[in-house]
Amino acid sequence: MRQADDLIGIDRALLHSLMEQVSRFGDTGDGGVDRPALSDNHKAARDWFCGELRARGYTVLIDSIGNIFGRLDLAGPDAPVVMVGSHLDSQPKGGRFDGAYGVMVALAAVETWRREAAERGIVPLCNFVIVDWMNEEGARFQPSLLGSSVYTGSLGRDLALTRTDRDGKTVESELLRTGYMGSDTPPQPCCFLEVHIEGDTALETANKTIAPFVRHWGATKIRIEVTGQQNHTGPTPMEDRHDAVLGAAYIITKVKELADTATGTLYTSVARVDISPNSPNIVPGRAVLFAELRAPEPDMLDWAETELKKAIPELAARAAVEAGIVAVERRPAGRFDDRLVSLAEQAADRLGYPRMRLDTIAGHDAVAVNGLLPAIVVAVPSVNGVIHRCDEYTSPQDLAAGGDVLLEMMRQIDKAGGSLDRSGGAE
Amino acid sequence: MRQADDLIGIDRALLHSLMEQVSRFGDTGDGGVDRPALSDNHKAARDWFCGELRARGYTVLIDSIGNIFGRLDLAGPDAPVVMVGSHLDSQPKGGRFDGAYGVMVALAAVETWRREAAERGIVPLCNFVIVDWMNEEGARFQPSLLGSSVYTGSLGRDLALTRTDRDGKTVESELLRTGYMGSDTPPQPCCFLEVHIEGDTALETANKTIAPFVRHWGATKIRIEVTGQQNHTGPTPMEDRHDAVLGAAYIITKVKELADTATGTLYTSVARVDISPNSPNIVPGRAVLFAELRAPEPDMLDWAETELKKAIPELAARAAVEAGIVAVERRPAGRFDDRLVSLAEQAADRLGYPRMRLDTIAGHDAVAVNGLLPAIVVAVPSVNGVIHRCDEYTSPQDLAAGGDVLLEMMRQIDKAGGSLDRSGGAE
Repeated sequence: MRQADDLIGIDRALLHSLMEQVSRFGDTGDGGVDRPALSDNHKAARDWFCGELRARGYTVLIDSIGNIFGRLDLAGPDAPVVMVGSHLDSQPKGGRFDGAYGVMVALAAVETWRREAAERGIVPLCNFVIVDWMNEEGARFQPSLLGSSVYTGSLGRDLALTRTDRDGKTVESELLRTGYMGSDTPPQPCCFLEVHIEGDTALETANKTIAPFVRHWGATKIRIEVTGQQNHTGPTPMEDRHDAVLGAAYIITKVKELADTATGTLYTSVARVDISPNSPNIVPGRAVLFAELRAPEPDMLDWAETELKKAIPELAARAAVEAGIVAVERRPAGRFDDRLVSLAEQAADRLGYPRMRLDTIAGHDAVAVNGLLPAIVVAVPSVNGVIHRCDEYTSPQDLAAGGDVLLEMMRQIDKAGGSLDRSGGAE
Repeated sequence: MRQADDLIGIDRALLHSLMEQVSRFGDTGDGGVDRPALSDNHKAARDWFCGELRARGYTVLIDSIGNIFGRLDLAGPDAPVVMVGSHLDSQPKGGRFDGAYGVMVALAAVETWRREAAERGIVPLCNFVIVDWMNEEGARFQPSLLGSSVYTGSLGRDLALTRTDRDGKTVESELLRTGYMGSDTPPQPCCFLEVHIEGDTALETANKTIAPFVRHWGATKIRIEVTGQQNHTGPTPMEDRHDAVLGAAYIITKVKELADTATGTLYTSVARVDISPNSPNIVPGRAVLFAELRAPEPDMLDWAETELKKAIPELAARAAVEAGIVAVERRPAGRFDDRLVSLAEQAADRLGYPRMRLDTIAGHDAVAVNGLLPAIVVAVPSVNGVIHRCDEYTSPQDLAAGGDVLLEMMRQIDKAGGSLDRSGGAE
């Protein structure tokens, strides 16, 4: 087994410098960034990033949904391609690490590997692509994972281009406006590696540094409409009321109860309720509930959806209202590539970083890509589990640790000529 | 006992004509009117009404909160004054009968009485004032019963003038703009009689035509703030969530349970919930609930408020949130003047109108005025109990019946020289 001190670590100064530079774009002055997809701030960050790639000799490709690919050919033109990266867009008033770190650490890792190969006389067997996926967050344009989903074909490009923001601007018009409507053929890599902040406290609590995500949870998003009857809260006798908010309250309580009574892991929420007319003295005529069920196992989601469906009529009757499911969106649960999980674990062990396995509940571009090619997300700690806020923070040591692991995974995959079955073994 | 056919009824043609004319102001084209307090539509209706009063020889007085009083001196200047009327403002997209009918029927009744006295050679012992109270509805400016409450002194004029609508316009500026900031001293009548549509189905169900309101219910309006913690609905484990909407659901359920378990009559509702940020995938950080408790007896309201207060900490703890009452507004329960109730019943009996007693749960100007001087509301049926909607409807026969009863009450009070103790007896 190779020793940790044999291993060249990621160029910490370069990673630090790149993080400093990218965080200027949309800087909110409180530590966070405001860089929604295809906003002026996002365009500025992408322009800078493409400049960095070109200055370092990468070929910049823009595909027809605005994904940016920075290709560096270290091996022959027909050599396998390893793709690394994440996304530069942020939540409105989000944090500086979510996404941008994954792109910066990818560039720093490829640059470090390139120099290491040159210095140590290694002949690389793979080429590398650094990707910036378009609109991962889904904050400005829904759905999220838009660029990576169009890349894999799970979302049609035509549909994606017509998505609109709150002002009615389309993805298409904003791609054209910002100069990111490309026509390049995207690369076909052998795998995709993404490094990301955890966004929860599991690593921090367990005092670990590295966690490959093993499973990505499924999510079932259910919209329930409750219909009552609008009336004055004064003279209308209780027995004549059809109170949509009361019906909503029973359903909200039930959705929580599903999580409490499930025999396995299930997260549930009703986080948005649209009430009409929402006036203090008018019995509400209508309430629309946005419920979410999330679980690592598909069976659990099926069970929860079925239980909720069964319960709704009785809950509605209790409030003398009508209620029904009007929309269901199902994102299936799944597993990342086992070989990449092992590779990440071996890399962490070699480097001496304490590690654990985690699932991801939130979506990531690697989840979308995972359907098409072997993919993985490697997580590093986020202090207090904060994500999507200005106080998102990961220490320089942990940022570097994620880079070291990524670099070692790239090294092993390169050594195996892009084969995941042969990579990662001891020397 | 005087026979019904001895009694001159209200001038049906005049009442009909007045209702037709007033319904033009803010006509929504679907049977309803849109005439919120001090809107252009409201001003137009009031301008027309003042014109009608002046043309008929009434002295128009405007007080310093914009109440309109049309005074007709039929007896000497020191004779007792009988006040009749209601309000010309409506809910946004409300009905044409709520309020306006009470003003039009008052004018038609005084005009009929004036002619009857002249034709029959009766020497009236009372003077009459027709009132249009400013902002009964409280739809544009809160609180409701604003003009009548300032009249009685239960609401300070300075506070009332600074109330703002959604656009930040004040009562003061809108009184000035519409020309209804007066300086006249309001009349000091011996009693106030108001006729109003019922706004519920009790009369219709019982097949009755006339109902004096006997009690006015009390209302306790409670604002509850639930504070959770904003977080992603994805990675945040269930045990770490502080979901303000879940806490709200438990409280909404409890508020309903109070009505179910009360040993007497209690109406409850939570009709407005303001949720923040109200996004499908963010655990809600805050919810503000607007709860209402209504009951005919003060003890019941005290009980319900105490029970709710006691329950909140446990309900909040169940959702791992904080919750507390941030505002309470109490409108006490009370009784209308017994003598006026009897007078209304005797009038209905003489006229052969089937009658019953009812309570009013909603507020009326007579409720506000009742604290200062003897007051009553006489209700006529509203078809299907509809109120505050364009399809509010009362038949011409029932509109006239309310007018006949009002006229007979005025006749009896006049005959007794304004004394409620001596009025209403058989001849």
